[in-house]
Amino acid sequence: MSVSPNLKYLQKKLNYQFNELPILQMALTHRSASSQHNERLEYLGDAVLGSIIAHQLYLQFPQADEGQLSRLRSFLVKEKALYELAQQINLGDYLNLGSGELKSGGFRRASILSDAFEAIIGAVYLDSDFISTQQFVLGLYQEKLAKLSLDMAQKDPKTRLQEWLQARNFETPEYEVIRSTGKDHAKSYWVSCNVEYQSIKTEGFGASRRKAEQDAAAKVLEKLVNDK
Amino acid sequence: MSVSPNLKYLQKKLNYQFNELPILQMALTHRSASSQHNERLEYLGDAVLGSIIAHQLYLQFPQADEGQLSRLRSFLVKEKALYELAQQINLGDYLNLGSGELKSGGFRRASILSDAFEAIIGAVYLDSDFISTQQFVLGLYQEKLAKLSLDMAQKDPKTRLQEWLQARNFETPEYEVIRSTGKDHAKSYWVSCNVEYQSIKTEGFGASRRKAEQDAAAKVLEKLVNDK
Repeated sequence: MSVSPNLKYLQKKLNYQFNELPILQMALTHRSASSQHNERLEYLGDAVLGSIIAHQLYLQFPQADEGQLSRLRSFLVKEKALYELAQQINLGDYLNLGSGELKSGGFRRASILSDAFEAIIGAVYLDSDFISTQQFVLGLYQEKLAKLSLDMAQKDPKTRLQEWLQARNFETPEYEVIRSTGKDHAKSYWVSCNVEYQSIKTEGFGASRRKAEQDAAAKVLEKLVNDK
Repeated sequence: MSVSPNLKYLQKKLNYQFNELPILQMALTHRSASSQHNERLEYLGDAVLGSIIAHQLYLQFPQADEGQLSRLRSFLVKEKALYELAQQINLGDYLNLGSGELKSGGFRRASILSDAFEAIIGAVYLDSDFISTQQFVLGLYQEKLAKLSLDMAQKDPKTRLQEWLQARNFETPEYEVIRSTGKDHAKSYWVSCNVEYQSIKTEGFGASRRKAEQDAAAKVLEKLVNDK
C-alpha cells in the first residue's frame, strides 16, 4: 500500500495524527478492495465507541435511568449518526473500494461510510490508548452531545402506545399496510392503526413500513391523551 | 447505608480495593432494595466490559474475522458466563435485595447476579480508570479466556444448516415440537427437523425448545456431511 498524501488532510480533519499510518489505511479499506480490510477494526471501534458514549451519557445525564441512557446511546451510535459524522469529514473521499463498489457509488453509501467511521475509531484506539480515543471521539461528537436532551430518550410511539394499552389491560393495536407506492429505494407507505379501545383508527405515512406505523401510533396516542 | 465488614472479603475476592466504598455498595444494590440501585452502573459496566473483551479477542485471535470475534464475545458476556463469574466470587452473599426478592431467592437468580456483576465492573471503572478496569476484568476472565478457541466461534447448527441449504437453493428445514415433559423450570423438549432434500428427518432433545432444535439440526448436518 502506498501512502496517499491526502491522509494528511484527513488527519487534520480528524484532529488526530496517527503514529502508524498503515492502520489508518486499513481502516479506510473496504473488503471489496483488499483482504487487509477494515472489518476487524470496525468490530473493535464499535465496542470502544459504545463504552465512550455510555460513560459520557452516564456523566451528562445523572438523572436518566438505564433505559433512557440506552436509548440516547442508540441515537448517537446508529448508522445515521455515524454516517453524518463521516460526511462531515468527507470520509468518502479517502475510502479504498473495489472497482465494483466504486462504480456503484459505494463511497456515498451510508453503511460503508458508517462502518469505516467505526473502523477509524478502532484504529485510533490501537494507535494510542483509551484516554486519547475518548478525547478523539468526544471531539467529533461535541455538537451532537451538546444538542442532546432527555426528551430524545423517550420511547418510540409504537412502544408507548403498546405500554399504555397493556397497563390498562386493553387489546394491543393492529397495524395494516393500506397501500405503498414507488419502487425499491423510493417507496412510500400508508399504514392504518386500529385500537379496539374507543374504536380509534388512524392512518400513518412514511418512507418505510416502520415509520408509517410509528406515525399512525403517534396519532392514536394524541387522541388518547387529549381524551383523558 | 452502613458499610458491611463483609465488603472486605468481597474486595479480596475481586482483587480490587475500592477508593469509594459507596460506589461498590450501589453496585450491590438491587432496585427492589433502594432507589440508589445498580441499574445505571450495570449499563456502564456492560459497555466497558464489551470493549475490554472486544480488544482482548482482537489481540488473542489475529486470524478471526469480525463475525467470529462477535460470536466469541457473545459467548463471554452472555448472562450464563457472567452468572458463573458471579458465583465464583459468591456475589449472592453480598447483594442488597428488597424483602420480596429475598424471600423468593433473588440472590440465586442468574439475571440479578449477572446484572450485579456488570454493575461491579461499572463501579470499578468509575472508581479507577480504563486500564485498571481492564486488568480487573481480564483477571476475572483469565480462565475463560485461556479455554477459548476459534471453534467456539462457529455458528450454531441451525444457522449452519440453514446456510448450507440456502447456498444450494434447497428448501429450508421445518422444526416441530413432538412432545414436552415436566413443568415450568424443569421442562424437556423433543423436536423433529424435516429437510426436504434427501427426505432427512431427525429428532432432537433438550431443556428448551431452542436447544432441542439445535440438537435436531446438528443431526441433520451430520447426515448431510457424511453423505457427501
